[in-house]
Amino acid sequence: MNRRKFFRNTAIAGAGLGVLGACTNPQQQAQEKKKAKNIIFLVSDGMSNGTLTMADTLKHKKEGKGSNWLNLYRENLVTRSLMDMASASSLVTDSAAASSSWGGGHRIPNGAINVGRGGEEHQPLWRKFKNAGKKTGIVTSVPVTHATPAGFCTTSKSRNDQAGIALKYLSHGPNVILGGGQKYFDANSREDRRNLYSEFQSKSYGVAKNKSQFNQINQGNLLGVFDQEGLPYSLDLMHNKDLTAKVPTLAEMTQKAIDLMKNHQEGFVLQVEGGKVDWAAHANDAAALLYDQLAFDEAIEVAMNFAQSNEDTLVIVTTDHGNANPGMLYGKNVNENFDRLQHFKATNDWVLQGISENDSVETIRERIEFANGFGIQKEEAKDLLSYYTNLEKEEGLYNYRNLPFKRLSQIQQNYHSVGWASGNHTSDFVELAAFGPGKERINAFIKNTDLHYILLEAAEVENKI
Amino acid sequence: MNRRKFFRNTAIAGAGLGVLGACTNPQQQAQEKKKAKNIIFLVSDGMSNGTLTMADTLKHKKEGKGSNWLNLYRENLVTRSLMDMASASSLVTDSAAASSSWGGGHRIPNGAINVGRGGEEHQPLWRKFKNAGKKTGIVTSVPVTHATPAGFCTTSKSRNDQAGIALKYLSHGPNVILGGGQKYFDANSREDRRNLYSEFQSKSYGVAKNKSQFNQINQGNLLGVFDQEGLPYSLDLMHNKDLTAKVPTLAEMTQKAIDLMKNHQEGFVLQVEGGKVDWAAHANDAAALLYDQLAFDEAIEVAMNFAQSNEDTLVIVTTDHGNANPGMLYGKNVNENFDRLQHFKATNDWVLQGISENDSVETIRERIEFANGFGIQKEEAKDLLSYYTNLEKEEGLYNYRNLPFKRLSQIQQNYHSVGWASGNHTSDFVELAAFGPGKERINAFIKNTDLHYILLEAAEVENKI
Repeated sequence: MNRRKFFRNTAIAGAGLGVLGACTNPQQQAQEKKKAKNIIFLVSDGMSNGTLTMADTLKHKKEGKGSNWLNLYRENLVTRSLMDMASASSLVTDSAAASSSWGGGHRIPNGAINVGRGGEEHQPLWRKFKNAGKKTGIVTSVPVTHATPAGFCTTSKSRNDQAGIALKYLSHGPNVILGGGQKYFDANSREDRRNLYSEFQSKSYGVAKNKSQFNQINQGNLLGVFDQEGLPYSLDLMHNKDLTAKVPTLAEMTQKAIDLMKNHQEGFVLQVEGGKVDWAAHANDAAALLYDQLAFDEAIEVAMNFAQSNEDTLVIVTTDHGNANPGMLYGKNVNENFDRLQHFKATNDWVLQGISENDSVETIRERIEFANGFGIQKEEAKDLLSYYTNLEKEEGLYNYRNLPFKRLSQIQQNYHSVGWASGNHTSDFVELAAFGPGKERINAFIKNTDLHYILLEAAEVENKI
Repeated sequence: MNRRKFFRNTAIAGAGLGVLGACTNPQQQAQEKKKAKNIIFLVSDGMSNGTLTMADTLKHKKEGKGSNWLNLYRENLVTRSLMDMASASSLVTDSAAASSSWGGGHRIPNGAINVGRGGEEHQPLWRKFKNAGKKTGIVTSVPVTHATPAGFCTTSKSRNDQAGIALKYLSHGPNVILGGGQKYFDANSREDRRNLYSEFQSKSYGVAKNKSQFNQINQGNLLGVFDQEGLPYSLDLMHNKDLTAKVPTLAEMTQKAIDLMKNHQEGFVLQVEGGKVDWAAHANDAAALLYDQLAFDEAIEVAMNFAQSNEDTLVIVTTDHGNANPGMLYGKNVNENFDRLQHFKATNDWVLQGISENDSVETIRERIEFANGFGIQKEEAKDLLSYYTNLEKEEGLYNYRNLPFKRLSQIQQNYHSVGWASGNHTSDFVELAAFGPGKERINAFIKNTDLHYILLEAAEVENKI
């Protein structure tokens, strides 16, 4: 949809509502009249359709009820849309251009944050809302300076300049910043040796680097970063007491962000990203993927609990692109195989980081049996070990040590029946669900950039900074 | 959703409409009052989300406008739903259990047609509608006796008993039967040597075995079968004059079926299947897949043209399961690569059936250059040829000659950027769109079996035979 057409459609929709006018029931009327004082925008990064399906099935099998995302559909609570996420440079977007399309309202080439081909900067949504008096927040399971939160908050020629993005947050950043990425704030790991923790503190931010500090801060602005880079995968987090004691969950961070901003008279806008869903898809790690999708799903519940008791809150639930298009595959024992994912205790990241070329085949089998709950064949373990001694190394985004993620995933496919189309993003049009005031503005098919303007209109905030 | 809950939800929805009552606008009122006299149920067999996306993009690039399916969303004309297609035996259904869930209203094990675990038979929807006085039809690009059409029309312990299913059609079958599958009707290829063509004729069916016969029949019942097994892929059909002269397109068959039944006073029900979408996904053949999806999309246009000028017609557009979860993959030249699919002239089936072990590497390169519009590397051609001489043969559904479909697909991925998660079905919840009277009965998330009852209720037809 181009902007002109969108405005035309909106006008028609508006006229339609006018005709209906006094005819709708009281609840509907209330919603149509309300503006969105608050917006909670939840992004499961890199979630293909199969991820949404399998997470729902896994939760259903474990707990007897489906995912919060799909329960919104089961209860007919939301408007659904299919969204075209192409970037200015490619039919297949990266997270930077995707977030910029929402954040800045323009399609830009992959790799940048709200900076167009000619160097032009597009002002981000959270700054527009801040300018209109609202509080703003970002919550993520990857570095807070990563592409998805950055696209709502700032501009940068390169998504990779996370140290620079941290500085921009300092000068005009959100009120609540929660996630990973300590290395971009710490004087010891920053090239410029600036101690951003103390600089944020001097701007009256509370700073938390672990869960007990996080728990103690219950007012004001907050910078909370709980790991050097991305936070641990949820599967590893939930099975490791040391990690649980140190790192809050996505749902806990979402609750904290809402609590810190909810009493602000002008309202708040909050972006929540399940960022490691994308990393798990790049690694073709089914258990890491599905448990991080379920951690994201718990954040949906937190957002919906707030929105259902605060009718002036618009909730958007979506993803920025497909990734690896996983699927539960047809086969004789698929039900039993998929059930095995209920008993996984650790991710493939944990498995593979802990193997060295001097390990025995038996050690590897034991390690995988501990992590996955089943033993693999000796030949499979031997083959996996060979990747540690061979020159042939796997490449892949976030696979800094060139570990054999794909090979392990292929072995596991025989046991859990989940397959993958690649280790990279896909062009699939993405699923979007909207709840609350403004949801009626969302067409059944939209272009990513439409959302920028829809959110401004829903909140009745002028498009300026 | 279980049936009890569904009825409860329906009751609530009904009450809601009651409250709205006189308040809705005239068009809405008309639609709410109308029953679905006619139903057109279109199934793209084995269509993953990526297939829907890529077909839309391909059409947009070739013709400057998106697919008919997604244009229904762009124009906000339909109700969307996500549908859980699991069977009684597996989270990943086959087409037989999938069609039976809609056709018979019960989940049964994979492999059967409306026959449950204990041998109980579930009477199919098209017989219920026939009993209520409606005309019934099936149109497909695979044998008319294949799983998807059969599930609406009959019962069979095994989907593979296509010769038996043809006999059942003879005794209680649909009024219009169009697709492939001559071998199940021909005395020469039937084990029982019965000539079903003359038996259908004696039951006052017109019989067509080619397009000119098809064109000449403009009234009465019709059995039209245009190939021994499945019909040719649309990509091969459109580039081969001999085939075009012999075989009608899915859209042409859909138009014929509507024309033959549209004046019937009690209305009609018609199922249309893009069956070779599934076969192309099993073969990981991107061009075959997308051009058959676009052929299916043209059938949607035919159905919508009728439904938009006949407001008593309910149109359902959906798929029965994901297959192979293809995706356009992130990479440097993805836009240019994907553009190559605009110029393909023949499917991988055509390419591989025409290669023999005595061919030279150059012959293979020329054959692929003719079919795909680009040359592959000598090493790639050599590798492909080796599959014809090696003992290592590929297996796969519908790959009767064990040809190297997967290997060719892997080679092509470097050129068109489409990747695949497998060569088999996936459990992905599937997309459904509904237009016309009754669409308001469809929840945002439904179970496959719900649809059986929703269609009966929309048409106000009793659930009996």
